[in-house]
Amino acid sequence: MENDQKYLTKNREKFNNDLLNFISIPSIAALPEHSKDVKRAAVWLKERMCKAGIENVELMGTGGQPAVYGDWLHAGTDKPIALIYGHYDVQPVDPLELWDIDPFKPIIKDNKIFGRGASDDKGSMFIPIVVFEAIFKTSGTFPFNIKFIFEGEEEVASPNMPEFVSKNVDKLKCDMIFSADGGQFSEDECELAVAYKGILGFDIEVTGPDTDKHSGVYGAAIANPVMALSQLIASIKNDKGEIAVEGFYDEVIPLTSKDKKEISRVPFDDKKFVEQTGAICLDGEIGYTPLERVSARPTIDLNGISGGYQGAGTKTVLPSKAFAKITCRLVADQKPKEILKKIEKHVEKHLPSGVTGKVIPLQDEGDPLLIPSDLDSMKLAKEVLKNIYGKDPYIIRVGGSIPILSAFYRFLGVYTTTFSFQLNDENWHAPNEFFRLSSFYKGQEAYRQLFHKIGSLSS
Amino acid sequence: MENDQKYLTKNREKFNNDLLNFISIPSIAALPEHSKDVKRAAVWLKERMCKAGIENVELMGTGGQPAVYGDWLHAGTDKPIALIYGHYDVQPVDPLELWDIDPFKPIIKDNKIFGRGASDDKGSMFIPIVVFEAIFKTSGTFPFNIKFIFEGEEEVASPNMPEFVSKNVDKLKCDMIFSADGGQFSEDECELAVAYKGILGFDIEVTGPDTDKHSGVYGAAIANPVMALSQLIASIKNDKGEIAVEGFYDEVIPLTSKDKKEISRVPFDDKKFVEQTGAICLDGEIGYTPLERVSARPTIDLNGISGGYQGAGTKTVLPSKAFAKITCRLVADQKPKEILKKIEKHVEKHLPSGVTGKVIPLQDEGDPLLIPSDLDSMKLAKEVLKNIYGKDPYIIRVGGSIPILSAFYRFLGVYTTTFSFQLNDENWHAPNEFFRLSSFYKGQEAYRQLFHKIGSLSS
Repeated sequence: MENDQKYLTKNREKFNNDLLNFISIPSIAALPEHSKDVKRAAVWLKERMCKAGIENVELMGTGGQPAVYGDWLHAGTDKPIALIYGHYDVQPVDPLELWDIDPFKPIIKDNKIFGRGASDDKGSMFIPIVVFEAIFKTSGTFPFNIKFIFEGEEEVASPNMPEFVSKNVDKLKCDMIFSADGGQFSEDECELAVAYKGILGFDIEVTGPDTDKHSGVYGAAIANPVMALSQLIASIKNDKGEIAVEGFYDEVIPLTSKDKKEISRVPFDDKKFVEQTGAICLDGEIGYTPLERVSARPTIDLNGISGGYQGAGTKTVLPSKAFAKITCRLVADQKPKEILKKIEKHVEKHLPSGVTGKVIPLQDEGDPLLIPSDLDSMKLAKEVLKNIYGKDPYIIRVGGSIPILSAFYRFLGVYTTTFSFQLNDENWHAPNEFFRLSSFYKGQEAYRQLFHKIGSLSS
Repeated sequence: MENDQKYLTKNREKFNNDLLNFISIPSIAALPEHSKDVKRAAVWLKERMCKAGIENVELMGTGGQPAVYGDWLHAGTDKPIALIYGHYDVQPVDPLELWDIDPFKPIIKDNKIFGRGASDDKGSMFIPIVVFEAIFKTSGTFPFNIKFIFEGEEEVASPNMPEFVSKNVDKLKCDMIFSADGGQFSEDECELAVAYKGILGFDIEVTGPDTDKHSGVYGAAIANPVMALSQLIASIKNDKGEIAVEGFYDEVIPLTSKDKKEISRVPFDDKKFVEQTGAICLDGEIGYTPLERVSARPTIDLNGISGGYQGAGTKTVLPSKAFAKITCRLVADQKPKEILKKIEKHVEKHLPSGVTGKVIPLQDEGDPLLIPSDLDSMKLAKEVLKNIYGKDPYIIRVGGSIPILSAFYRFLGVYTTTFSFQLNDENWHAPNEFFRLSSFYKGQEAYRQLFHKIGSLSS
C-alpha cells in the first residue's frame, strides 16, 4: 500500500486545483448579497469532506451561516477524540482596484496561490482535510477519532458560534482541539500560542443637564459632563500606568521568571513597533517590557469618546451628555463579569459631583485563556514544529482575543492549540492575498506528523 | 409749540403702524434667500430715520449686510456725542407650524405686537428713533449730538462688526454709547448691566498613533490619546472647582463686599435654576454663590469632546486623535491673549507622556467688560430707570459675552450702557415673538427722559 506522505506529494496538483476551486466561491460573510455564496462554499466543503472519507458530514444551522461538521469515530474508545477548527468564509475585497487579479479567479504565480481567502483561511483549513484523506485512503483507517467543525462567520466575529457550541456540546465533545486558523512566526521560525487575552466591552455615560444648554447662562454653576467624564477616566490610571480600579489585578496570574524568559526569547523590535504606529515613543505600565505589556498584561483601552459640540469653530454649549467607549483586555484568571462589577464600583466611587453616570455593558465578552504547558495537544504540536523547523517554537501570548476559543473552553472544557501555517505578510484582509505553496506543503507534512502522533496516544 | 411727550402720545397709532411695517420685512440674516430682505429693511430704516429728521443717513458696507448710520451733530462742541446701537436683522422663524400667525404679517392683539423681531430688536431699536423725532419735531432742535448705528448681522454673531468699528473710528467717535438691544428684569423691575464676560475659544488636540490602530496589538504599549486628553482636561480643575491653570486668576478684579451685596440683591432662585437645566444639583467653584459664579467668575467650559470610535457596540481601536472644544468666559481684567498663553503653558506642562498635543486658537475672542459705576451714561440711565420704575435697578453682571460691546470698547474706548425695554418672556428666537405695547410706550418715555438728561450735560 502506498504511504500517506507519497499520496500527498503525488496529489499536490490535484489538491492545489481543489483549493483554487474552493477560493473561487466568494463566501464573504459580511455582505448580504454574498449570502448564497457562503452557503455554496459550505456545500462545496461538505462534498469535498465526504470525498476525503470523512463521515456524517452535514451543514448545521447556527442562526447565521451554517457550520460544516464531519467526523470519523472508529478508532476505538482507547484513542482520543480530536476536534479540528477552521473557517470557510472570507473578508470583503474592497478596494477592488488595488488587486492585480480578480480576487475570486485565483491563480498560482511565483509559487504562491493568489485569491481572497487563499491564506485566511481556506488554504489553511483545507490542509487537515487532505491529510485526513491521505492517511485514510492509504491505510483504510485512521489512527484516532477525529471531528471537524468549520464555521462560516469568523470574519464577522463569530456572532452565533458561542451559542452554537453551547447547544452542541455532545456533538463537539473531544479531548483536544486544534485550530487550522492562526499562523507561524515567519517562513523559518515557528510559534505556539499559549495565551489569549479576554475581552470586556462597555460604555461609560455621564449626564449633566437634560439638553445642551447655554454655557454663558449655566456653565459656571452646573457640572459639565465632559469635564466629569474626563476626571472619571483620568481616575482609571495612576501615574505608573497601572489601572487604579480597586482589585483589578487581584485574579491576574503573575508572570513567572520562566514566563518572562519565554517572552524575552520572542524577537520584538521596539523601534519598529513604534514606527508601525507613528507614535512618538513607547508607553504603558512600568515594570514590564513592551512585549510583556502587549502579550501578558491586562489593559483598559479607551476606544472612543464623544460629547457636546464637535463641529468647526465654537459653540458655547454646556453639553448634556458625554460617553466613552471602552474595552478591557483581560488575562488569566480575570473574569469579565467580575471586572465589570469592579469598574461599576469605581465609577460609583469616583463619579464627580453634579452629574449622573452609568456603565453600559456591551455584548463583547470573552474569557482570557492561558493554556497549560503540559497539555497533550500543545506538547505534540511543539514536537512536530521542532521537527519541521529544526528549532523550538516561540512561546507566544496573544494580545488579541478570539471569542471562539473562549467558547470552546467555556462549553467543552478543552483548550485549543493553534496549528496553522499562514504567515502574516500574506495580505490577510487586504488586496492581493496569497498563500505560499511552500506553506501549503509544509502544513500538510506538519499535520501528517501531528495526526500520527495523536494516533500513538492512548486516551 | 407742542411738547415732545404729547407728540409721542398723539402719534402712538402711527408709530405702531410704522413698526408693523418694519416687522413685515423678513430680514433674516442667517438665510441667504432673505439677503435681499435684509437690505430692504436697511433701506426702509434709512428712509424712516430721514423722516424723523436724522441727517447723513446712509447704508455702510461691512463686508456682510449693511450697517445703517445717521446723525444729528448741531448741538455744539460743549454737548456730548451719544451713539445709539441696535440691530434690524431678525432670527429665522422655524418651526413655522408653532406660530399662531404669519411671523411677517404682524398684528396687535391683547396689547401686544406679535411678529418676528417685534421685541428683538425692531421694536426696541425703533424707540430712540421716534423719541428723536418727537424732540426734534417739537423743538426744531436736539439737546445733544447724536449718532445712530444699526447693524444687520447681530443674529449671526456680528461677524463683520468688530472690523467695521475699527475702520470707522472717526465716524463713530462718541462720549457715550447706549444699546437699544438688551432688556429689563421684569414688567415692574429694572436692571442695569455693568459687566459682560469676555470669551476665548480654542481646541485642544492630542495625537497618539498616526491612524487608528488595533488595540489588542498596540494598546498596551502605546499611549492612548483619549486617556491622555482626559488626564489633561482633568488637570484643568482642582477639587474645589477652581481652575488650576497657573496664573489664570491673576488679573481678575476681586469682588468687593459692595459687589457681592449688589449681586445678592438680584432675585435668583437656586431650585428653579437647577430645574431649568434638568441637572441633579448646583455645582461650581466653592466660596461663591451660584449667581456670583454665573455672573462674576471666570470659567473654562468644555463644549465638546471627540475621538476614536463613537458608533454602536464595540470597536477595538487605539484612536489616533482626540480633541476637546473649549471656551473660557473671562472677567475683567483678564486678557484673552494672555489667558491663551497660560493655557498653552499648562498643556505643555501637563501633557501626558507618549502623545503630542496642541492648543488651536479659534476666532472667537472678546474682552470682558466691567463698566465703571461713575460712568455718565450709567448714572443717567440709573436715574431714569429709578424714576420710571419707582425703584433702584438691579445691578447685573451678564454671564454671556456680547462681541459688539467689546469692539466698541476696544476701538472707541467707550463703554456701552444697555437701555432697552424688551422682556425675556417675549419669545425671542422662538415662535410667537411679541412686544408689549406697554413696554413700547414705557421705552419711549424712558428714552425721552434720558435724552433730556444727556442734553443737560456739558461735555
